[in-house]
Amino acid sequence: MSTFEAMSHLSAVQSSSDFLSTTTIIALTVFFSLLCACIIVGHLLEENRWANESITALLLGLCAGAVVLLVSKSSSSRILVFSEELFFLYLLPPIIFNAGFQVKKKQFFKNFTIILMFGIFGTVISFCLVSIGAFLLFRRIGVTSLDTQDYLAVGAILSATDSVCTLQVLNQDETPFLYSVVFGEGVVNDATSIVLFNSVQSIDFDNIDAIVALKLLGTFLYLFFSSTILGILAGLLSAFIIKTLYFGRHSTDREVALMMIMAYLSYMLAELLSLSGILTVFFCGIVMSHYTWHNVTESSRITTKHAFATISFIAETFIFLYVGMDAFDINKWKASSASAGTSIAVSSTLLALVLVGRAAFVYPLANFINCIRNRSSSKIEFRQQFIMWWAGLMRGAVTIALSYNKFSNSEDTNIEDSALMITSTIIVVLFSTVVFGSITKPLIEAMLLRHAKPNVSDAADIPSLEDLRILFVENGEPSDLRGNQPAAPKRSSLRLLLTYPTWTAHYLWRNFDDRFMRPVFGGRGFVPFVSGSPTSAADETSGT
Amino acid sequence: MSTFEAMSHLSAVQSSSDFLSTTTIIALTVFFSLLCACIIVGHLLEENRWANESITALLLGLCAGAVVLLVSKSSSSRILVFSEELFFLYLLPPIIFNAGFQVKKKQFFKNFTIILMFGIFGTVISFCLVSIGAFLLFRRIGVTSLDTQDYLAVGAILSATDSVCTLQVLNQDETPFLYSVVFGEGVVNDATSIVLFNSVQSIDFDNIDAIVALKLLGTFLYLFFSSTILGILAGLLSAFIIKTLYFGRHSTDREVALMMIMAYLSYMLAELLSLSGILTVFFCGIVMSHYTWHNVTESSRITTKHAFATISFIAETFIFLYVGMDAFDINKWKASSASAGTSIAVSSTLLALVLVGRAAFVYPLANFINCIRNRSSSKIEFRQQFIMWWAGLMRGAVTIALSYNKFSNSEDTNIEDSALMITSTIIVVLFSTVVFGSITKPLIEAMLLRHAKPNVSDAADIPSLEDLRILFVENGEPSDLRGNQPAAPKRSSLRLLLTYPTWTAHYLWRNFDDRFMRPVFGGRGFVPFVSGSPTSAADETSGT
Repeated sequence: MSTFEAMSHLSAVQSSSDFLSTTTIIALTVFFSLLCACIIVGHLLEENRWANESITALLLGLCAGAVVLLVSKSSSSRILVFSEELFFLYLLPPIIFNAGFQVKKKQFFKNFTIILMFGIFGTVISFCLVSIGAFLLFRRIGVTSLDTQDYLAVGAILSATDSVCTLQVLNQDETPFLYSVVFGEGVVNDATSIVLFNSVQSIDFDNIDAIVALKLLGTFLYLFFSSTILGILAGLLSAFIIKTLYFGRHSTDREVALMMIMAYLSYMLAELLSLSGILTVFFCGIVMSHYTWHNVTESSRITTKHAFATISFIAETFIFLYVGMDAFDINKWKASSASAGTSIAVSSTLLALVLVGRAAFVYPLANFINCIRNRSSSKIEFRQQFIMWWAGLMRGAVTIALSYNKFSNSEDTNIEDSALMITSTIIVVLFSTVVFGSITKPLIEAMLLRHAKPNVSDAADIPSLEDLRILFVENGEPSDLRGNQPAAPKRSSLRLLLTYPTWTAHYLWRNFDDRFMRPVFGGRGFVPFVSGSPTSAADETSGT
Repeated sequence: MSTFEAMSHLSAVQSSSDFLSTTTIIALTVFFSLLCACIIVGHLLEENRWANESITALLLGLCAGAVVLLVSKSSSSRILVFSEELFFLYLLPPIIFNAGFQVKKKQFFKNFTIILMFGIFGTVISFCLVSIGAFLLFRRIGVTSLDTQDYLAVGAILSATDSVCTLQVLNQDETPFLYSVVFGEGVVNDATSIVLFNSVQSIDFDNIDAIVALKLLGTFLYLFFSSTILGILAGLLSAFIIKTLYFGRHSTDREVALMMIMAYLSYMLAELLSLSGILTVFFCGIVMSHYTWHNVTESSRITTKHAFATISFIAETFIFLYVGMDAFDINKWKASSASAGTSIAVSSTLLALVLVGRAAFVYPLANFINCIRNRSSSKIEFRQQFIMWWAGLMRGAVTIALSYNKFSNSEDTNIEDSALMITSTIIVVLFSTVVFGSITKPLIEAMLLRHAKPNVSDAADIPSLEDLRILFVENGEPSDLRGNQPAAPKRSSLRLLLTYPTWTAHYLWRNFDDRFMRPVFGGRGFVPFVSGSPTSAADETSGT
């Protein structure tokens, strides 16, 4: 520890480079060393059932925060200040983009209605419950200075689940249905809770009525659809540019650069137009992996696939490390003069509300979906419902960022209560990530994999695409369904259409895609093979 | 233009996201759109003999700066302020690292002595000449308020060549000798001029004597060797970690992340220890491509190769765009109240000094090397000397950054003269990059490729490695050279050793490498093939 101080002293005196401030360099060095340590420790713990990279990063961050606190003699634990700008501008976009880029599109769109229901209605239900719960319970604990807006903000803040942690806990190959639902919900949920949070901040609560509520709904729908469309357009534009310009003379570096920059640009554009950047960049990722990715060279494909995953991985680890280190920020704890008892009471109340708030929409919505689905084989089992509830309990960086935004410079609210809200949020995030997070993996193993029967929605009792195709081809085009075919096959195809609406939609989409989209934007099978850089690329730097 | 303003107004009013400041978002959106445009235009102009990506970016940046100036009604052209921290912390390291990672190591080390001579002595000669020239000539133009320290700083600032632009102009495959010398010199030169600049800033000129000069030399040698060693150690550490930990169960994302972070960490560590981060990260790149790169999976190899090149490419384009946009910063031009005549006079003086300063070391040093090399076939031709002189005339972002550092907050110097120095530096950078840069490519074609005889130092009249190996094997180990072998082969091998010292050194190094280094740190042929992710990696995201 003394070497740490001595080194910083040394370099302050004889710094050969006067361009960079020593504190920045020290902060970055410590931070990147910790990142390295996280990756190595995370790798070593890979086989461990309880740990994952998020938890490792969080705990390492906590340790580092404690060390810095000791070294600086309790004056400060912050070597990097948590900045909302850093988080929303540079860390979140690559994570969400990569999620869209790597998601299994078939699963995602198959469960699209469920995802939207959970992500939108679910989040609103959770938001209402947490707000009302906080309003009723906080007075009894002794937190009195919060107003309606604050309670609603607390609801929005604690409704933002942590999709990053979920990604590390669930496995896309083992439990594809759960993965796509929980993760897809997480992305929509982030967008919903941020929109809710912003709406709550801007609404005048003295003149609230049904029209305002309707307006809110309208704003949300507008945001949702225009963000999605913007993302799709950005993705298509990138596909079109690369297909048109680069055909015949590919350049891997330019292609990869263009994909990165256009993805980032879509996020920035959405934010500029006051839309939801998260949704935009997510759909941009989906479209890019469907079209653009197939237009580039083989080396570009491998590079983008792994480079996006790596950047996202670094950003995730960075965030958890950050949250961990930030937890020991002594100033916040000093500002909150609440007793340990009050602190624990508030935190456990919030945790309980999170648990109840999520249970209050997962079970009802899942059973509602089961009622609609009449085939018993496609129902969501109770076991799956439980995992869906549990896997969405983690709270993460979005929660922290929103909490800072609301309470760190709040003018109306009592300073002590504001600080108390921030510290309680941190406790909720730490507890839920470490405790809930580490239990999830063994829990899923115990709940699902031991009962080794095939997962309901992944079972093979749905017609194969080939069956559908043959059927449609026999009947002519789907638009001919109302035509004058013989009665027997017609009834059969109509029955299929009604029984498997998602699959029919998928079939229609594939037709449309093959006929109109792919010829323009490229995509699998629609870009001729180009001989060139791909094959010879691997061996160039190896010349010793 | 009015839409630009209207949009910024709009989003300021109804911004749904309150976390990000609107100006930042606008700046980033404009900037990333320009980056996109640069890549596309650069691709379209690829076949053009006169343009390259640097020039495109610079000109696009100038246009954008002019547009912003018009839109903002001449109040400001800065949508992003040129920050030394951004440049030295985030843009320069990936460029230099990638240069080390992709450099042809054989060529580089073969010409190592030439590179060091040019990079160190050459830069010092140029520094002295430019300083003295400026001291003698500026008084005549009417610039009087500069002191000795300022003149020496001008010398250091204008001795920093732009290795980035050189990379785009010379071709590693067509002219490997020139490429390795000019580029290698560029890296050493950056380090030298930054060290010179910092030394000049810190020296007390009232008490200067021979001891201070010797101390300066000592500091420089210390910086050079310790930076190099640090870079090598960081590279070896990364190789060791990946070889030891990851063997048998590779994870592409973790491997790539670890390589990125450790490379960056080496730069930060060097800066923290007050060494030259540029040299450190350059040698870290070389070592990583020699050992670490061979220890990872096939997909990691492709990913790192292209991801590093892409990041470096984006950073380069970014810098030139930045410099272009920054050139129209109206405040600097206003502060410099000098007449257009004085401005032009100062700029052309500086340009002339740059031309003379570089000629003054390239020709003498090249001819000195020719004198030492007694074989006429390995001499540097005059034509090559001319290209070496010409290709190092471009000045770039390092010059701008140093100039800002010195003159933007200078306390001693007259404000008007400081502003004049900054604007003149910008003119020199713009002129040399655009004019010299666009002439270079046709010039090289005219000078070298039309005289289609094989390049001197790349010719095959040097003994093949195999010949050397056979010879040494016949004679036993190199250490046995003094042993009691028959006279004829002994003389022959001694003659070889004396005639081709570089090749002998290379042979000895290869022996050492194969026997001691590769078994520990891995490297080509020393890591058994691991079946796993590599082959199946390419097709995973393609599941529609």
